[in-house]
Amino acid sequence: MPSPLDLGGDVVDLLRALIDIESVSGQETAIADQIEAALRPYAHLSVVRDGNVIVARTDLSRSERVVIAGHIDTVPIADNVPSSTTGTGDEAIVWGRGSCDMKGGVAVQLSVAAALTAPTRDVTWIFYDNEEVEEELNGLNRIAREHPDYLHGAFAVLCEPSNAGIEGGCQGTMRLMVELEGVAAHSARSWKGHNAIHDAGAVLQLLADYQARHVEVEGLTYREGLNAVRITGGIAGNVIPDRCSIEVNYRFAPDKSPAQAEAYLREVFAGFPVRITDVAAGARPGLDQPAAAEFLAAVGGQASAKFGWTDVARFSAMGVPAVNFGPGDPNKAHADDEFCPAADVYSCREALLRWLG
Amino acid sequence: MPSPLDLGGDVVDLLRALIDIESVSGQETAIADQIEAALRPYAHLSVVRDGNVIVARTDLSRSERVVIAGHIDTVPIADNVPSSTTGTGDEAIVWGRGSCDMKGGVAVQLSVAAALTAPTRDVTWIFYDNEEVEEELNGLNRIAREHPDYLHGAFAVLCEPSNAGIEGGCQGTMRLMVELEGVAAHSARSWKGHNAIHDAGAVLQLLADYQARHVEVEGLTYREGLNAVRITGGIAGNVIPDRCSIEVNYRFAPDKSPAQAEAYLREVFAGFPVRITDVAAGARPGLDQPAAAEFLAAVGGQASAKFGWTDVARFSAMGVPAVNFGPGDPNKAHADDEFCPAADVYSCREALLRWLG
Repeated sequence: MPSPLDLGGDVVDLLRALIDIESVSGQETAIADQIEAALRPYAHLSVVRDGNVIVARTDLSRSERVVIAGHIDTVPIADNVPSSTTGTGDEAIVWGRGSCDMKGGVAVQLSVAAALTAPTRDVTWIFYDNEEVEEELNGLNRIAREHPDYLHGAFAVLCEPSNAGIEGGCQGTMRLMVELEGVAAHSARSWKGHNAIHDAGAVLQLLADYQARHVEVEGLTYREGLNAVRITGGIAGNVIPDRCSIEVNYRFAPDKSPAQAEAYLREVFAGFPVRITDVAAGARPGLDQPAAAEFLAAVGGQASAKFGWTDVARFSAMGVPAVNFGPGDPNKAHADDEFCPAADVYSCREALLRWLG
Repeated sequence: MPSPLDLGGDVVDLLRALIDIESVSGQETAIADQIEAALRPYAHLSVVRDGNVIVARTDLSRSERVVIAGHIDTVPIADNVPSSTTGTGDEAIVWGRGSCDMKGGVAVQLSVAAALTAPTRDVTWIFYDNEEVEEELNGLNRIAREHPDYLHGAFAVLCEPSNAGIEGGCQGTMRLMVELEGVAAHSARSWKGHNAIHDAGAVLQLLADYQARHVEVEGLTYREGLNAVRITGGIAGNVIPDRCSIEVNYRFAPDKSPAQAEAYLREVFAGFPVRITDVAAGARPGLDQPAAAEFLAAVGGQASAKFGWTDVARFSAMGVPAVNFGPGDPNKAHADDEFCPAADVYSCREALLRWLG
């Protein structure tokens, strides 16, 4: 067992210690044990361990409760553990798997949870497993199913990397298949068949000509997208293809429900055989909530829209508005050269202290 | 060793005997041995064995020589050897691997070669191996390279199945790849990339709108075709694809050379990145040759254009006009329920006797 996590020390040292405990999805027990052991001594927190999820709450009977959550798993190691640093002080960069996605955020959570003995709002700190894998395994998803009360709050912050800025809500995502059927024939006698790949031309032209919406929701501008992400058709160099399948991904702003998104796509693809294969609802940014407004003021700067889908949508589905806010560049998540600037970690920590202190 | 082939008996019995000697491509030695042994006793034929190719020639110093060729290999057995028959006499159907493609034609060749001791034209009978596999192995191709003199003649008949009618020449075939490149991006931020699959829309619309030529060559009408036969693009459901490849097959009438076909396609696809991957020249039907005209008269009926590519193109490349003429329905070639009508076998045999007798 490595030395215990020191929640009262430097938050960047804490980040390095967290990286050094490998926690690829499915193997989070060691890091969950360490987090639980580090939180238990704090009398202002009541700590619950549920599988590899840890929930630590203040119970000060404040008028409002906020939830601050982060996942403790990472994608597989790429020869980037243990951690390393370059530079010093505020210029330091911390390198290693999970530095960005999202042990930087977890370090901020732990450090602030320990420091804030009497926050102005009650806080539920959540540390969960299996975010990087199938939805059924996702720890936050499991808690939402089995203990929805743990997630209750007026507002939620997910400490996913956002360059230490606030990214509000998230877009929804829907996948569909356009499955075209033709009639096979030898390509030397093509008029005896019907070419399903040729029929795909009209679908792809529609997509090429499509003008995606820019939508303002609660002051944030979301950019939608409608794209073919895969196409496949044909079985041999001398056969007129009788099948062609196009997989399309629709990213839709959080002003649309999944049902509205589906109805819209069925209209866009009217006349083509369409099958919806996958959907995840978006999340409104919730920036019209008082807790959010004060959070924005504490952080400073301008909130921006989150385009990718994140677990904020799980809070949104439970009626809890949520934003992403954490150290590190989301473009470095999962990269072999994943890193997190120390300055981001410090500034996120200070922003949370300003908001809740 | 099975009983020797009887070239003087019933041609349908001979067909059954040929089917019963398995001769999947690459395993033609047994059938080649039998054919050689059966031809050697005929004093009017000089027989050469070269690998598993057998060439049997009359040398009567006629003013003209014709070549009549057929392959002795088959695609793999599908539980359809030994042969069987249903019906009797002219109504009989012979079932089994190779019955249609093309031991019916080989039986006709052998029967007529034996019977015609003094043909009105000198005849070169060719029996060759490895037609159903890669071009480099093709026995006729090898002979064309090593002994082009064996293939010399004013006219050639390839006894491939043609429902006992004359199919003249063959179309050429060219394959090309249209390889579109884009810029990858996460599909939640699609505007940072460029979708290569969307670019395929214009190519497919061009193909969908394309009007293929109907071309008359020496009295036969060829129907061209330009078709996408395969398309592939995309790597994941959340990535804007940076590549999309379309494989296109052009079947062109024998009035065009491969170079002309390529120049034409480069014009059709002007502006798109095109790479030619494969080409086989077509063959003119040669029906303007006197030998062909007399052949047509002997066979009767109407000649039609051959759309698929066959080895007649090898003769054509050597300046020898060639047609397909043999028993059996080409649509049954390679089928598990491959068969050949006895009536086709008899009528092809009689037509050759009328022409050369």
